[in-house]
Amino acid sequence: MILTIKSDAKKKDIDALTEKIKDLGFTPHISKGAVKVIIGVIGENEHKYKDVFESYDIVESATPIVKPYKLVSREFKKENTVFDVGGVKVGGNKLIVIAGPCSVDTKENLFTCARAVKSAGAHFFRGGAFKPRSSPYSFQGHGESALKNLAEARKITGLPIVTEVMDTRQVEIVERYADILQVGARNCQNFELLKEVGQTRKPVMLKRGMANTVEEWLMAAEYIYSGGNHQIILCERGVRTFENSTRFTMDLNAIPVVKHYTHLPIIVDPSHGVGVRDFIAPMALAGVAAGADGVMIEVHPKPTEALSDGMQALLPVMFDKLMQDIGRVAAAVGRTI
Amino acid sequence: MILTIKSDAKKKDIDALTEKIKDLGFTPHISKGAVKVIIGVIGENEHKYKDVFESYDIVESATPIVKPYKLVSREFKKENTVFDVGGVKVGGNKLIVIAGPCSVDTKENLFTCARAVKSAGAHFFRGGAFKPRSSPYSFQGHGESALKNLAEARKITGLPIVTEVMDTRQVEIVERYADILQVGARNCQNFELLKEVGQTRKPVMLKRGMANTVEEWLMAAEYIYSGGNHQIILCERGVRTFENSTRFTMDLNAIPVVKHYTHLPIIVDPSHGVGVRDFIAPMALAGVAAGADGVMIEVHPKPTEALSDGMQALLPVMFDKLMQDIGRVAAAVGRTI
Amino acid sequence: MILTIKSDAKKKDIDALTEKIKDLGFTPHISKGAVKVIIGVIGENEHKYKDVFESYDIVESATPIVKPYKLVSREFKKENTVFDVGGVKVGGNKLIVIAGPCSVDTKENLFTCARAVKSAGAHFFRGGAFKPRSSPYSFQGHGESALKNLAEARKITGLPIVTEVMDTRQVEIVERYADILQVGARNCQNFELLKEVGQTRKPVMLKRGMANTVEEWLMAAEYIYSGGNHQIILCERGVRTFENSTRFTMDLNAIPVVKHYTHLPIIVDPSHGVGVRDFIAPMALAGVAAGADGVMIEVHPKPTEALSDGMQALLPVMFDKLMQDIGRVAAAVGRTI
Amino acid sequence: MILTIKSDAKKKDIDALTEKIKDLGFTPHISKGAVKVIIGVIGENEHKYKDVFESYDIVESATPIVKPYKLVSREFKKENTVFDVGGVKVGGNKLIVIAGPCSVDTKENLFTCARAVKSAGAHFFRGGAFKPRSSPYSFQGHGESALKNLAEARKITGLPIVTEVMDTRQVEIVERYADILQVGARNCQNFELLKEVGQTRKPVMLKRGMANTVEEWLMAAEYIYSGGNHQIILCERGVRTFENSTRFTMDLNAIPVVKHYTHLPIIVDPSHGVGVRDFIAPMALAGVAAGADGVMIEVHPKPTEALSDGMQALLPVMFDKLMQDIGRVAAAVGRTI
Repeated sequence: MILTIKSDAKKKDIDALTEKIKDLGFTPHISKGAVKVIIGVIGENEHKYKDVFESYDIVESATPIVKPYKLVSREFKKENTVFDVGGVKVGGNKLIVIAGPCSVDTKENLFTCARAVKSAGAHFFRGGAFKPRSSPYSFQGHGESALKNLAEARKITGLPIVTEVMDTRQVEIVERYADILQVGARNCQNFELLKEVGQTRKPVMLKRGMANTVEEWLMAAEYIYSGGNHQIILCERGVRTFENSTRFTMDLNAIPVVKHYTHLPIIVDPSHGVGVRDFIAPMALAGVAAGADGVMIEVHPKPTEALSDGMQALLPVMFDKLMQDIGRVAAAVGRTI
Repeated sequence: MILTIKSDAKKKDIDALTEKIKDLGFTPHISKGAVKVIIGVIGENEHKYKDVFESYDIVESATPIVKPYKLVSREFKKENTVFDVGGVKVGGNKLIVIAGPCSVDTKENLFTCARAVKSAGAHFFRGGAFKPRSSPYSFQGHGESALKNLAEARKITGLPIVTEVMDTRQVEIVERYADILQVGARNCQNFELLKEVGQTRKPVMLKRGMANTVEEWLMAAEYIYSGGNHQIILCERGVRTFENSTRFTMDLNAIPVVKHYTHLPIIVDPSHGVGVRDFIAPMALAGVAAGADGVMIEVHPKPTEALSDGMQALLPVMFDKLMQDIGRVAAAVGRTI
Repeated sequence: MILTIKSDAKKKDIDALTEKIKDLGFTPHISKGAVKVIIGVIGENEHKYKDVFESYDIVESATPIVKPYKLVSREFKKENTVFDVGGVKVGGNKLIVIAGPCSVDTKENLFTCARAVKSAGAHFFRGGAFKPRSSPYSFQGHGESALKNLAEARKITGLPIVTEVMDTRQVEIVERYADILQVGARNCQNFELLKEVGQTRKPVMLKRGMANTVEEWLMAAEYIYSGGNHQIILCERGVRTFENSTRFTMDLNAIPVVKHYTHLPIIVDPSHGVGVRDFIAPMALAGVAAGADGVMIEVHPKPTEALSDGMQALLPVMFDKLMQDIGRVAAAVGRTI
Repeated sequence: MILTIKSDAKKKDIDALTEKIKDLGFTPHISKGAVKVIIGVIGENEHKYKDVFESYDIVESATPIVKPYKLVSREFKKENTVFDVGGVKVGGNKLIVIAGPCSVDTKENLFTCARAVKSAGAHFFRGGAFKPRSSPYSFQGHGESALKNLAEARKITGLPIVTEVMDTRQVEIVERYADILQVGARNCQNFELLKEVGQTRKPVMLKRGMANTVEEWLMAAEYIYSGGNHQIILCERGVRTFENSTRFTMDLNAIPVVKHYTHLPIIVDPSHGVGVRDFIAPMALAGVAAGADGVMIEVHPKPTEALSDGMQALLPVMFDKLMQDIGRVAAAVGRTI
């Protein structure tokens, strides 16, 4: 960590800080520059003491040198993390495609959808049983009965199930039915939930919070990983910006960044990322070209009957075409589907 | 709600949509403009069906006319919400000041701090027992023992206690010790937690999420209010922007906006909002001048011993001066302290 | 345009507003909803009077129905705009690639670079003669001598030249040497410059401002188009967000949005968009997959000798590989290069 | 400057970089940390070579230690810059208030307005002759005739005039009529214009660009200051964020930041900052409480006749009340008006 010292700092205050640095087990390296004094703090776990150093009045800024995450970093583990979920490899050269409705509604719609995405070539089936909604008056999900229907859809199609868990108290029941636990964007920094899913043995798909930097997102993954659960899929789903022609701004820049800094797989969710039906397919292809390890797409056989987010659901026929396009772009960047 | 129809929509599709509008109990008003057809959807609860209308392919956009929140709106209740917490009026002409350390550390520091802020004129004492931290390796709070120490500080000073609850499973224990339950910025859209604190009878201080619009924030408050808990304090604590000279960008614009649209009290938290000791006092005064109903300030007798956020803690002597300045600005805008 | 009227508006004020609407040549359509009165303003050029309607105290909001741009819209011209620059078709099925150094430095580096990008298959050569720099102490460009060197590079390679114009007074000289005039991100809303390049007969590449919505960007293009210059290339180069792991956040979502709303071609500039050498190639491929009509890439034979932005310059050998990858992704989405 | 070196860097590449550092006249300080090598680059003008160091492939990041601005910094000049404009002191303990219409329209409205703001106590009169408008179809300002009317208003009231210059070619004519040249938000990084106004002897009011960091804004001021014009007023007028209940997000945090880092005066423009009549007064007061050296307010006697931005114009009677409130808040923070 580099401490930049204020220009008007007194020698005795710099000395006191230097003592503190030694007390904490670090070695201080003082450099007197043309204008400022800077102190290099050499040692491990620098992040742990960032707050302490910054609390000194003479410290203008404390700049860490290493990234704050460890176990999820490429430096900790060079090769990509690859794991198996119900017979499907995640994180390998072959992309994964997760598809299904936003919310579980009728059994008929659900099973029609599951068969359609299976036949188009999807590897996982998704559907919401517990729904995070901005309004208390909006549909909140069918809960356990939806989970049961998802399990039935799995029996019919063989596709493993991805579904969201919103609260620590729901982890047990969702774990019982789902193959992958989804942690939604609004819970990316729900640290108690992260700890809890870190204790399960089911893979976790961790969406990026809409105001979270890549670094914060990887720290959220570190919560899960350090809890003992190493099967994590990151999912970019759009961040908040001033632009309003799309629902969010899907940040594809994050894909090469994430692939550079971490060994974990990353997928994209253009359905939530842009939120407009016509723009989803191009963004799915862009995600694949940028190096994503998979794609999640909302599909509904009858979007106008959907209980949430119908405007961003593709019809099965559109999804079918998209799968073929994804296959071509995947091949162009040396991947398969 | 106003539906703008795509220019190339066919008559039969417009007719089908019009039928749907009627089926849902609304009255459609069709206007053929110079360029576009628009349909006014007249009736109550328009927000409930926004998703449905948007899922129609011929609908370019659906623009609601009324705000999505009801119970927290000025239209529902014209006069300001005022309530009593441990003998202190919240939301009235007299401002409230909440002060204390970020995290509870030693008893000695805690009680020194409590006595100091009491003597400077604060009305509430704050301190974190459960701490949301970006890193799993950072100090996570002393939990129940910290709550007990806060209760002891209340006994010593008479100041009611404000402390954070991070998880539905913590609500019971925090409610037992605290006078006001704080829901932090990262949990502003933790809907299960909102529902749970909506069931308690303790007042809730709801911080704005760092990527939440004012509208989403008020919808979060609506979750609590519609659950039966009407004692809500909104707290602006900074949003995420591109600017990096402050930790967050405290959005004081939100104060007149919130006072215009809702009857709930709002306070500001400049300590987290700017995160730099030297800039906290001016922003506290600015919050009061903008019309805030109170201020929350982090104070620590020995910032370099703080277990979190020491860089943004004021020394008691600074807080004392700030209280006097707040008093003068409050008077200038017709308030007392 | 839809005017939403405040709930407490008096009848006489609504009547006065209605008269004003008629006076301006529009037809008012009044709808009394469950909660609010709304007035539809029917007629052309609604945007021209948005400010006027909003200045009425009883008007809560004025929501235009049609987009504010006309000539650049898909509604004005359905088919893609395609034009020829020095024998290269822009906006057609074949992508364009623009490559070269950020700034023009030595003749030797320039000509080496021009030959390298030509041999790799680029269609245009770029280089900065006038440089917009955040600091007055940074290199500001070699001006006319750089323009002359660019012209010489064109003679050597046959590649048409793209270079930036920063000021109305530079338009004449840049027009004399360049084949395409670049208007940079910081000048996206330099309206006098837009008017001036609208008067030239050279094609204009208009970069999106780092805080401009797609709508504002298209309005900037409308300035040029309505001035009589219809040869416009839009260029997405990243917007400002809270994320700091890349220099800017390149907004690929804007590509399908722009292709939907306008007939103008759009290219991407991942070099400025991400600003980190390792992340440029994936983002270039993502841009092509998203539907961009071309790519601009910074290339320098000796990045450590570059006078600006060396950290984002590809070596010729990297660019060569990228061209092949672009070719494959282009083919996958039905385009050629 | 601190260079963080990539973990896999080879010794010979580090040696080559070290040589380059020496060649450029700096002294390298190498520290081998627990995980990374970092190199301190000691010497002046580090910013000038940031690009060069970052262009080395082994450099992960280059972190400057000193701020990039010099002449406008507090380190260069400790005491506040105070100067006189037409008999009014700017930057002193007494606040300045600039008021007037957004655009100059009729003489009658203009003179009525000028007399009203004078009588309410304003120190400067503002009005737009050249108007930056998002749309080419919007009113673009009355140009020189408006400047002449402003000069007449000055004769009538004695108030010095503030008006915008949008283009290098307009500097001469605006300088002839105006007392303070305004550089608008969209031109904050129009570097040629900054250089040009740096050559004039008229004070410049420099608005912050809506996507500019405080650092970039101060660098823009450095362009003017280093050109020889030291009479600069900074003006915060709102930045772009995701929030949409106000037109922009006025960043009051910037006020203490700017006062800390620079000796230049700063004022706030809540009219553009929030863009909603009802929210302007509270934000003006908040700006004063935060430490601003003045306020700019749009006032129009008949907002519904305004040619631009009528929705954010205060009526003279509202402005009159605001002046009294400003006076009280100013007194509360030890200032006068």
